[in-house]
Amino acid sequence: MYVILVYDVNQKRVGKMLKLCRKYLNWIQNSVFEGEITEVKLKELIMRADKIIKDEEDSIILFKSRDEKWLDKEIIGKEKNPLDFII
Amino acid sequence: MYVILVYDVNQKRVGKMLKLCRKYLNWIQNSVFEGEITEVKLKELIMRADKIIKDEEDSIILFKSRDEKWLDKEIIGKEKNPLDFII
Repeated sequence: MYVILVYDVNQKRVGKMLKLCRKYLNWIQNSVFEGEITEVKLKELIMRADKIIKDEEDSIILFKSRDEKWLDKEIIGKEKNPLDFII
Repeated sequence: MYVILVYDVNQKRVGKMLKLCRKYLNWIQNSVFEGEITEVKLKELIMRADKIIKDEEDSIILFKSRDEKWLDKEIIGKEKNPLDFII
């Protein structure tokens, strides 16, 4: 399964979320990840993310597609993330 | 066409980008938008966004699908955006 994951979490929890998501998906922008993942691994990721976020403040949006081929991706502006070095 | 748009722009330009994107798409998270849009309108949006962003600093990612049905959306945590009032 192909997923796009976008999170909007409080600054205090950004580091943890970033580290977690990078274990499962590819980092493509500040708070955006994408990649192929199995149902089982995705459930594991959601479970672990759920422990990091505060439901009243943070949110995660997941877009799931059976196949990446249904989606075209276009990037406007810079491609690389300059925050890479802080991890 | 169904699109997901995510931007990562400098704080100085966030207001302008937000205002622009809201004219064309539905705002679903801090810097995430989605919606049905025609090819023509999307080109217009990209052209206008291109004038706002600085290519060396900012980026916009577009995921395009011919049909929303190829994507499932799941939201974890809060659904509403508390920043709504600053617009």
